[in-house]
Amino acid sequence: MNKNDFAITPPMGWNSYDYYDTTVNEEQVKANADYMAKHLKKFGYEYIVVDIEWYSNDAGTKRYEHQYIPFGDDEMDEYGRFIPSPSRFPSSKNGAGFKPLADYCHNLGLKFGIHIMRGIPRAAAERHLPVFGTNVTAADIADPGSICGWNPDMYGVRNVIEGQAYYDSLIQMYADWGVDFIKCDDICDSWMYRDEHFSGWHETRMLHEAIMKTGRNIVLSLSPGPAHIDKAFHYCDNANMWRITDDFWDKWELLKNMFWRCEMWQDHVKAGCFPDCDMLPVGTVGAGFGEERLSNFNYDELMTMMTLWCMFRSPLMIGGELTKMTDGDLSVLINEDLLELMKDGWKAAQVYRDDRYAIWKSQNKALEKTVFAVFNLSDEYKEFEIDLNTIFDDSKEIYHFKEIWSKSYVESGQILKLTIPPHGVKAFK
Amino acid sequence: MNKNDFAITPPMGWNSYDYYDTTVNEEQVKANADYMAKHLKKFGYEYIVVDIEWYSNDAGTKRYEHQYIPFGDDEMDEYGRFIPSPSRFPSSKNGAGFKPLADYCHNLGLKFGIHIMRGIPRAAAERHLPVFGTNVTAADIADPGSICGWNPDMYGVRNVIEGQAYYDSLIQMYADWGVDFIKCDDICDSWMYRDEHFSGWHETRMLHEAIMKTGRNIVLSLSPGPAHIDKAFHYCDNANMWRITDDFWDKWELLKNMFWRCEMWQDHVKAGCFPDCDMLPVGTVGAGFGEERLSNFNYDELMTMMTLWCMFRSPLMIGGELTKMTDGDLSVLINEDLLELMKDGWKAAQVYRDDRYAIWKSQNKALEKTVFAVFNLSDEYKEFEIDLNTIFDDSKEIYHFKEIWSKSYVESGQILKLTIPPHGVKAFK
Amino acid sequence: MNKNDFAITPPMGWNSYDYYDTTVNEEQVKANADYMAKHLKKFGYEYIVVDIEWYSNDAGTKRYEHQYIPFGDDEMDEYGRFIPSPSRFPSSKNGAGFKPLADYCHNLGLKFGIHIMRGIPRAAAERHLPVFGTNVTAADIADPGSICGWNPDMYGVRNVIEGQAYYDSLIQMYADWGVDFIKCDDICDSWMYRDEHFSGWHETRMLHEAIMKTGRNIVLSLSPGPAHIDKAFHYCDNANMWRITDDFWDKWELLKNMFWRCEMWQDHVKAGCFPDCDMLPVGTVGAGFGEERLSNFNYDELMTMMTLWCMFRSPLMIGGELTKMTDGDLSVLINEDLLELMKDGWKAAQVYRDDRYAIWKSQNKALEKTVFAVFNLSDEYKEFEIDLNTIFDDSKEIYHFKEIWSKSYVESGQILKLTIPPHGVKAFK
Amino acid sequence: MNKNDFAITPPMGWNSYDYYDTTVNEEQVKANADYMAKHLKKFGYEYIVVDIEWYSNDAGTKRYEHQYIPFGDDEMDEYGRFIPSPSRFPSSKNGAGFKPLADYCHNLGLKFGIHIMRGIPRAAAERHLPVFGTNVTAADIADPGSICGWNPDMYGVRNVIEGQAYYDSLIQMYADWGVDFIKCDDICDSWMYRDEHFSGWHETRMLHEAIMKTGRNIVLSLSPGPAHIDKAFHYCDNANMWRITDDFWDKWELLKNMFWRCEMWQDHVKAGCFPDCDMLPVGTVGAGFGEERLSNFNYDELMTMMTLWCMFRSPLMIGGELTKMTDGDLSVLINEDLLELMKDGWKAAQVYRDDRYAIWKSQNKALEKTVFAVFNLSDEYKEFEIDLNTIFDDSKEIYHFKEIWSKSYVESGQILKLTIPPHGVKAFK
Repeated sequence: MNKNDFAITPPMGWNSYDYYDTTVNEEQVKANADYMAKHLKKFGYEYIVVDIEWYSNDAGTKRYEHQYIPFGDDEMDEYGRFIPSPSRFPSSKNGAGFKPLADYCHNLGLKFGIHIMRGIPRAAAERHLPVFGTNVTAADIADPGSICGWNPDMYGVRNVIEGQAYYDSLIQMYADWGVDFIKCDDICDSWMYRDEHFSGWHETRMLHEAIMKTGRNIVLSLSPGPAHIDKAFHYCDNANMWRITDDFWDKWELLKNMFWRCEMWQDHVKAGCFPDCDMLPVGTVGAGFGEERLSNFNYDELMTMMTLWCMFRSPLMIGGELTKMTDGDLSVLINEDLLELMKDGWKAAQVYRDDRYAIWKSQNKALEKTVFAVFNLSDEYKEFEIDLNTIFDDSKEIYHFKEIWSKSYVESGQILKLTIPPHGVKAFK
Repeated sequence: MNKNDFAITPPMGWNSYDYYDTTVNEEQVKANADYMAKHLKKFGYEYIVVDIEWYSNDAGTKRYEHQYIPFGDDEMDEYGRFIPSPSRFPSSKNGAGFKPLADYCHNLGLKFGIHIMRGIPRAAAERHLPVFGTNVTAADIADPGSICGWNPDMYGVRNVIEGQAYYDSLIQMYADWGVDFIKCDDICDSWMYRDEHFSGWHETRMLHEAIMKTGRNIVLSLSPGPAHIDKAFHYCDNANMWRITDDFWDKWELLKNMFWRCEMWQDHVKAGCFPDCDMLPVGTVGAGFGEERLSNFNYDELMTMMTLWCMFRSPLMIGGELTKMTDGDLSVLINEDLLELMKDGWKAAQVYRDDRYAIWKSQNKALEKTVFAVFNLSDEYKEFEIDLNTIFDDSKEIYHFKEIWSKSYVESGQILKLTIPPHGVKAFK
Repeated sequence: MNKNDFAITPPMGWNSYDYYDTTVNEEQVKANADYMAKHLKKFGYEYIVVDIEWYSNDAGTKRYEHQYIPFGDDEMDEYGRFIPSPSRFPSSKNGAGFKPLADYCHNLGLKFGIHIMRGIPRAAAERHLPVFGTNVTAADIADPGSICGWNPDMYGVRNVIEGQAYYDSLIQMYADWGVDFIKCDDICDSWMYRDEHFSGWHETRMLHEAIMKTGRNIVLSLSPGPAHIDKAFHYCDNANMWRITDDFWDKWELLKNMFWRCEMWQDHVKAGCFPDCDMLPVGTVGAGFGEERLSNFNYDELMTMMTLWCMFRSPLMIGGELTKMTDGDLSVLINEDLLELMKDGWKAAQVYRDDRYAIWKSQNKALEKTVFAVFNLSDEYKEFEIDLNTIFDDSKEIYHFKEIWSKSYVESGQILKLTIPPHGVKAFK
Repeated sequence: MNKNDFAITPPMGWNSYDYYDTTVNEEQVKANADYMAKHLKKFGYEYIVVDIEWYSNDAGTKRYEHQYIPFGDDEMDEYGRFIPSPSRFPSSKNGAGFKPLADYCHNLGLKFGIHIMRGIPRAAAERHLPVFGTNVTAADIADPGSICGWNPDMYGVRNVIEGQAYYDSLIQMYADWGVDFIKCDDICDSWMYRDEHFSGWHETRMLHEAIMKTGRNIVLSLSPGPAHIDKAFHYCDNANMWRITDDFWDKWELLKNMFWRCEMWQDHVKAGCFPDCDMLPVGTVGAGFGEERLSNFNYDELMTMMTLWCMFRSPLMIGGELTKMTDGDLSVLINEDLLELMKDGWKAAQVYRDDRYAIWKSQNKALEKTVFAVFNLSDEYKEFEIDLNTIFDDSKEIYHFKEIWSKSYVESGQILKLTIPPHGVKAFK
């Protein structure tokens, strides 16, 4: 079994965080799964991911004060493993866990994923709960000096055999439920520790080993970013995707910044190994955060985002509530000319970038195809004259392109003249 | 009440750590108190300080693995306040706390001190124990993101009214017991946090306020070091002493290094405000650490240490087990010519320092007295020629000095010629 | 000779920089000296200091592009020592140097100072000019890897005997001219080098030694800041004053910030050793910078500045053009109740500071006098109730004060009630 | 013209530095060229590179004191462009420059390269020499705040049109001489500047543009390292190779460390873009440094080095004096099984690395070939059992390999058993 086979192409799906924060429940997950099966599955979207604190019974009840309630009311089994909150996920009762919900997704032809925090629950350590399959307790494998800087639920797990046993039993339980995707948080970057003290480095490996032992193809996604570029081998060795940015939201500064991040990581995109630009804040977001809103991105910005994500071959995880998608939102997510670039065989590279504009080019050598895009990174309408010799190895007298978003056809000499709105893009195949 | 009146001169006493680590018990404390009353009190030593984890029932039982046992068996009252382990301190049973032991010391004419960790017990937060005098619980005031990098017992306390109430109730209980000295740990320097995130800054102030409210003169000592020189005002504003070094032990490198630290802090020594060079590893130390030993310092080094500490006016806390002191050890600790310099009115300054030697000078302007010392910081016997014009403002033809350690008398012209053994000192009055 | 005797109290005078930048000439210097002798000398102001690049013939001619012209037209003698630009300082011709101008000041009962850059001219090294009194050239003692981050004139001087010879000959020449004050730049802080590589540390000592060798009382002032608090002993050992701030200008943010700097350095103010808050931008400034203007500080801010500088006992170097001072400006500079605090025997300390207000207190124990000031650091009119028990050791029923700026008299109980304008101060004796 | 076509495969050749330091002369260069043409050319080695300070007439004359003599006797033309020292390179006289020596190499079927320092000579700026093709002087384009931390020859060039003109004229002159390879120093990493202040970033681009303008295929090599991994796009955009390490020498620690560096950079190896492990200290080195010696590497270490460099596809620049090569040294340099991996189409990746051993694998997908190597990074003889399933995608019952260094043939089941000497390697095709 080779972890790179779990995700030959970048995973695509939906994640509950951008809309629900910590509060999503079973009914809501199912509604999104239904929508995906009906509208998005045929374009390649398949993962339904339940994000952070699905084990919390009181999630969201002190939102004015805490995003994550310290010493809160969390659901765990007798081995210190978090299980779903029964009030939020009724089908999980009586030890069923997420199996019914995973089955639901599988029956729709989809895959099912969950979020976990690195480590073992602090409460399990305080209560000295046994570690499954060992004669030690959580207190013995929890590292009381390894905590998360922003979430109070866990302690890091020590790099010992019994620590591996904990992760093995945890991931096996999730595999038994039918989980296909695990997004592990507080493990890719930590603002709290200097490198050598961050136990997340060995815990990444422990998680990978635990997944291998299950024999189940579980995609491993690491969060939050920004990932450390000098650790690229380590991420790639153990995980399928890792965040190259802190949380991405619908702000132009963050989107513009992503061009720099993609430039830095472009050579690290490989089958099974995907630097991750984070969720797509398309449509309606923010409800769980107390401010339900339409994405602050206008359509030029949404097209810029999708073009960059697809060319770079980032995973595509939709952040907006699916059932509230408009046709316009949907059209951004399902542009087939773009989604084509997510397939195996395509490889992209930045051609140029300065503060005003960027050019990316994606090639499929087997198909002898090239797609390129020009992004207007400035805040004004701009005219560009692109020398096609900087993009194509052998020059032609006349080029014929299809512009991917407008679906219009263009004929050009060596100099391609373009007008692009602020924050907008034109992409040509 | 002014905190600077609690410690007009640098506190002097004994601390259990260097010999007992976490394990000292009542009988041992009393034996040291008896010794102090008999042999050291008349020289100014008066504090008997019980160091770290006197609340731990299992302290020292996993010493090969943990100095501080995570999720260990700690004794606390119903308000989440640590109380003495009854097996180790039998007189503390039935709610007596340290009052009987404090009384014992007071009856000997001594003062009694304890060590505390910054914060509130993690176990109190997990158990949602009530905070005395409030309607909230430990879970509400504990900051789950504020931990100690090396001890697993506590969470930092949030900067809220109920947090102050916790500290008030804690310090009031200790005042009621008769505590005269509190050494708070994990509060002076933290290797874990970048400055702005370290909750110890506000907790220092909370402790000071809690002490003021008791109306009892409780000396506040901050640990560990190195203290941040740019925070000197903050330490001085709230505490009586603060460590300017990480743990000091019987290694020459650490002692040599202290000259640099004293150089840096010399202008900050004031009544009620004492930069602290840490305990004196004199005599027998290390038992609780599994290696009972005589101090690695030879007598030249011990004299150098005492001379620097006394001239600089560091607090003097003896680290060795008192009942095992030899006459030689004792003679180092009770040199009256040196201890004179600890009194109010003396002020010292470094005259010169390089890698080979240092000169310090202490003056009492009211008494028109000057004491100076020449330290050989090199590893060899060295001859020095000291130009006394660099030390005394008005020159004389002939100087007459008493060398403080040998108690010999010296006559010198402007150039004082000295031979000093490696790591040794000559001090003149 | 003891360098601390050169400046028992903080130096006071005028500096050409704030008004003239690099361009001041002889006539202008004399006009300011005349003014000082007539109006300011009696209050203690005595130094007339010619600031940066008095050796430059083309200073200021490319001001739009360079403050300091690279590879410019600088005047130096055959030993690579800068001498005054003869076109700007006509009396300096024929080898007279600044002697005539220094004499002019001395005849007015004033003292004369100059600015120098750390190091030896780059042009002297390129031209292999001889080092006076040695058989080596500038190329041998210049460290080509030690430059200034913002001024292109010099290379640092290597820590070798011939390097000391260069500094000796330089300072002796200046002593022969009658220079009383040297402000050395690029030597207190450097943004360019990590500590261990900064040759300014040894060059500070070389300058001090060179001054001692002249036998002339030349005050040594180090610039720019912020000085490193952990190097306080080093500054104090070699210099009389050192900047604790980067260039100070007439902006409230910088003035407010100075309270934090003074808090940090207050224990380091000693006879001969003065942490320096930088020039006073009072009156008319900025002409040489291309924007002649009245100080942006209003009178409340000017009074706050003067009160802090005087209580802290910073050197007082007036930055505005003296001949353009209004009576109002002058009144700020010559408040005798405040200037009294600059004398020997006064010692100040911050009592309290937060973001809204600060209290300072200055005491003269011999005279049994106390002065205190309350500063409104906020942007609004504020009422304050000051508990006088936090300021005075022994409380009275009734206190009588003179408010220093309004010269009004106040009677108060334990709680002193005050209204202070934004950025303003009330100071009481 | 596309810079990536200049170096489809990693450049291979000889560089004068490791043996000659700054002192190589024409005769010596020719002798090495002769040797290369005769013994190494057929294996792909083709570049003869004259390293640092070929323009210095007094290079090496103060070696006990300076590697690079400050303000030394350097040869430059009237436009401030360095030209060869005529005493060292007689054929360069009368304006011929390196053309005769380049011709000599070309006639042998080899290519000719030189080292340059980033920037413009400091002496040119001091002398205000004109910039070719402009009406400004060196003083106008030199940035006096941009120097090299270890070599005193140059100032950085400002990012202005006339600065580009300087680089254009410099590179055009070198192109006219027939230079095929430029190693620019002080441009890849600088220990002196924080990133944003380092003028090397724009000077890299200026050099690239200057090369493009010549129309000549000049390979651009950047030094010193370690290159910044987050700047990979920038290096790749402008240069053909860049050092990923500080100077590499014949010390095991440096060689072991290179495994970590190659791990980090492995995804950035592309046609025209080669992360560079630095010169190969094989044979006799060090003469110019005052200690002529045989490489400290034993043959196991040399084979390890060559195997890593070839698999990683680092440029191969021989550091030892060619005319002193033994047959043994030569055999390390010309192993054809290994050199095969330098060709286009091969791509390598680390399979595993810990402190004891590493596995690398190189694949040529078109040829369906795989080569792998096992490196013993420990200091002892070790037996290894390598699971071939971790290396090959589809498993076989029996594998047949040729071990590349011993040229022996091996038959293995799924577990390959090996014994490898300390610091040694076995490589299999």
